[in-house]
Amino acid sequence: MYRLFHVPLSPFCRKVRLVLAEKKLEVELVEERYWEKDSDFMRRNPAGKVPVLKTDLGHMSESTAICEYLEEIHPEIPLMPSLPEHRYEVRRLVGWFDDKFFNEVTSKLLYERVNKKMMGQGYPESGAVKSGARAIKFHLDYMAWLLDQRRWLAGDQMTLADFAAAAHLSSLDYISDVDWRRSETVKDWYAKIKSRPAFRSILADQVPGFPPPAHYSDLDF
Amino acid sequence: MYRLFHVPLSPFCRKVRLVLAEKKLEVELVEERYWEKDSDFMRRNPAGKVPVLKTDLGHMSESTAICEYLEEIHPEIPLMPSLPEHRYEVRRLVGWFDDKFFNEVTSKLLYERVNKKMMGQGYPESGAVKSGARAIKFHLDYMAWLLDQRRWLAGDQMTLADFAAAAHLSSLDYISDVDWRRSETVKDWYAKIKSRPAFRSILADQVPGFPPPAHYSDLDF
Repeated sequence: MYRLFHVPLSPFCRKVRLVLAEKKLEVELVEERYWEKDSDFMRRNPAGKVPVLKTDLGHMSESTAICEYLEEIHPEIPLMPSLPEHRYEVRRLVGWFDDKFFNEVTSKLLYERVNKKMMGQGYPESGAVKSGARAIKFHLDYMAWLLDQRRWLAGDQMTLADFAAAAHLSSLDYISDVDWRRSETVKDWYAKIKSRPAFRSILADQVPGFPPPAHYSDLDF
Repeated sequence: MYRLFHVPLSPFCRKVRLVLAEKKLEVELVEERYWEKDSDFMRRNPAGKVPVLKTDLGHMSESTAICEYLEEIHPEIPLMPSLPEHRYEVRRLVGWFDDKFFNEVTSKLLYERVNKKMMGQGYPESGAVKSGARAIKFHLDYMAWLLDQRRWLAGDQMTLADFAAAAHLSSLDYISDVDWRRSETVKDWYAKIKSRPAFRSILADQVPGFPPPAHYSDLDF
């Protein structure tokens, strides 16, 4: 069985949790206060961040490297297409969400509002929050543009790209920072993902001091 | 033939250039002042960054997605091992350099000293430069620790991980920000990479206003 060191609202951890659950792989979740840089944790992962997946081979870090590994050794329920150009598009979008979306949106909203408080680093910086709230609109529009041409973000099958995007959006939805009225197309896509059994553990997350809004776990939001 | 829109000192562009060159794929290099967000460029790549690789299929962005694609369609000279656990280690280290090393070192030294000036964004912030100069020591030590156990960074064969690392270090070496005396092991590794034919175009780079030091292109540095 796998063991995953994680924090509940981290989009990078959620992406790995979604992949494990979609592939029906059993995992024990262990919450990790990684910012305290506990020496056991640093030994498991010198990068000092989550997720860290414990496997028979040792401790693995870097969420995308973990997901590609899980895809390679458990290919039965595929989350990557088979053609190189389609695989490219999945990886481009995973990069888009984990780099661009993260820097422009997630780090500006979730990290300012939640992580800072949890880590005892003070109050949200209002300029950052405003900039994140502006940027998410552009990203939702970009997703709507993609989804007008495709069933799923990277093509006609559900892939890692959808999980990367849903991981960020679900974490932001936990703090009511996604305006689902902006695009019916994006809302329909999220409703499809949200209703998958793989999403259940994420919808059950509870962070002390930050109760989720009622619509967060509602499949008919 | 491929066409690559790039800037000479960008480690992400250098990584793609190294992969193309090592695989003996012809490429036309086009310098792109991406920060001016020229409308033609933004159409080619809505993320507004380099590298962008023009192929028969269109314009590709996200350096790691591009490299994985090139590896899949041109596998003759392999830059990825075949076992999933070895491929994981390559991807972990590519993530390490392109995310952690980039944020802690490259963005603090190269971006402060060079990009800001080129983009007309003012002077380097001395706190950032100091923090980058401190962090690179930890990273060189980590590389030395890996290379004490392995011929190359991710194992016994040269991979994308070595190119990702060499791309960052060569860009920093262009501005004399790598102290090669810190580790004989790392220096030997860099000397091996630097002497490959694939590295020639990178050693010939010249950025107006920033002449490279003599040791930059010297194979016996």
